[in-house]
Amino acid sequence: MKWVFVNNQFVEKEKAFILTNDLAIQRGYAAFDYLRTRDHKPLFLDDYLTRFFNSAREMFINIPLSKEAVKEVILQLIERNGMPESGIRLVATGGYSPDSYTPVAGNLIINQEPITLISEDKFFAGVKIMTHEYMRDLPGVKSINYLMGIWLQQQLRAKQLDDVLYYHNGIVTEFPRANVFIVTKEGELVTPAQNVLEGITRKRILEFGHKLVPTVMRDIHIDELRDAAEVFMTSTTKRILPIVEIDGKPVGAGKVGSVSILLNQKFLEVEEEYLRSH
Amino acid sequence: MKWVFVNNQFVEKEKAFILTNDLAIQRGYAAFDYLRTRDHKPLFLDDYLTRFFNSAREMFINIPLSKEAVKEVILQLIERNGMPESGIRLVATGGYSPDSYTPVAGNLIINQEPITLISEDKFFAGVKIMTHEYMRDLPGVKSINYLMGIWLQQQLRAKQLDDVLYYHNGIVTEFPRANVFIVTKEGELVTPAQNVLEGITRKRILEFGHKLVPTVMRDIHIDELRDAAEVFMTSTTKRILPIVEIDGKPVGAGKVGSVSILLNQKFLEVEEEYLRSH
Repeated sequence: MKWVFVNNQFVEKEKAFILTNDLAIQRGYAAFDYLRTRDHKPLFLDDYLTRFFNSAREMFINIPLSKEAVKEVILQLIERNGMPESGIRLVATGGYSPDSYTPVAGNLIINQEPITLISEDKFFAGVKIMTHEYMRDLPGVKSINYLMGIWLQQQLRAKQLDDVLYYHNGIVTEFPRANVFIVTKEGELVTPAQNVLEGITRKRILEFGHKLVPTVMRDIHIDELRDAAEVFMTSTTKRILPIVEIDGKPVGAGKVGSVSILLNQKFLEVEEEYLRSH
Repeated sequence: MKWVFVNNQFVEKEKAFILTNDLAIQRGYAAFDYLRTRDHKPLFLDDYLTRFFNSAREMFINIPLSKEAVKEVILQLIERNGMPESGIRLVATGGYSPDSYTPVAGNLIINQEPITLISEDKFFAGVKIMTHEYMRDLPGVKSINYLMGIWLQQQLRAKQLDDVLYYHNGIVTEFPRANVFIVTKEGELVTPAQNVLEGITRKRILEFGHKLVPTVMRDIHIDELRDAAEVFMTSTTKRILPIVEIDGKPVGAGKVGSVSILLNQKFLEVEEEYLRSH
């Protein structure tokens, strides 16, 4: 038995539906977030809920429950499903709009799903990526709009690449589902300052990174990306995942660098510290 | 009783649902189209179906029925619902994707809804618009991605405007749900050539327009828009709708122009001719 929260109640997965006149289905209009559980605990829950409610507010979507009530639903869902390691998907839709265009009281969907984390082998192999000129609409908002990311998958498969990094007007921004960091040849840790989603893994690294290496948020030109000593992506499901090749050219020495390894170890410690204290 | 076609069957409106793990709900990923019926007949049906199947193919979405079978469903829906004047909404989703990212066999949703056409008063009053720098993702494809269009509604309401016209790098493209035409001071009818959805109303006007006025498809610079004698939008629900004000400044003499009136009359004739011959 697997439970999903929808329409203000827990229902079995096979009965978790919304009507086809919802603005999510008619217009792709819904706020979104995604967090992870470990040992039955939702990691950094307050950060994710704050972002989810911010995204919804920016999109003029009214989440039908309070932040505290959503937190309670998530905890109940984890208990009901008995799935210790998982992803929790939060979607707040534009609702059953009479004119099929204007957001109204929406549907809140909370779904728990299996998750596959990055293995140590995968971490040390790193991933190969391409770049693509693009900027997400409302980049500070996490919505369900993944049109470009999904559409580009076909190219990634054809080129046997793992992911695509967006840039806009020569400035690097983000992956469809992850943030980017570089380590410059001078040993500075840099992540884009603007036009990106403020990832929670990115936030943690910005909090502790400066204790280990000089850390700044600023624009990264695409040439600086190609010239970096190390490049990695950060996300809820990937934590830190090193990039070893960009557009067919190796990053630095073409293998996972020491700063990436150090930050990944530190991030795992922060995660475990969170679990001990929650 | 109102019928909707979903999951390969006709169901009552209140039972027309899809499960919440569809890619339309999780990722806003679905192909879309919208046509109109008049006197129980779907206008220009083949054009709309061709575009719908093209959009789906461009998005790597597999529509579970053939074009002929979708046509048959639409005709049955019109008969069952007894709604002579209506809009028919077609959505082909990315489906129940196991990884929540890769399109799989999708859901086809066909919904008939009431429609309000532009009255003669509304036509002759014209509408007021603003411009906004933006270009839709995959502009040649009609998808459910209306994030920017819906998000901008709040600004339109605050400014008491009717719609927003996108431009990109100084070149006018389209409205969120309509094409744009201008009539230059020299009497030339122009519509943007690229980075727009190829509207069916636009297509009809391009077919007959040249018999009435010199007609071209080419880039329109935003300055040329502001300098035009007449500007109008075209769409399935609006046919031809004149613009009388752009960013607070009157278009031409600030009232509906003679070319707009002539083309609108002609378009109505084309519509009636289609009804007689189908």
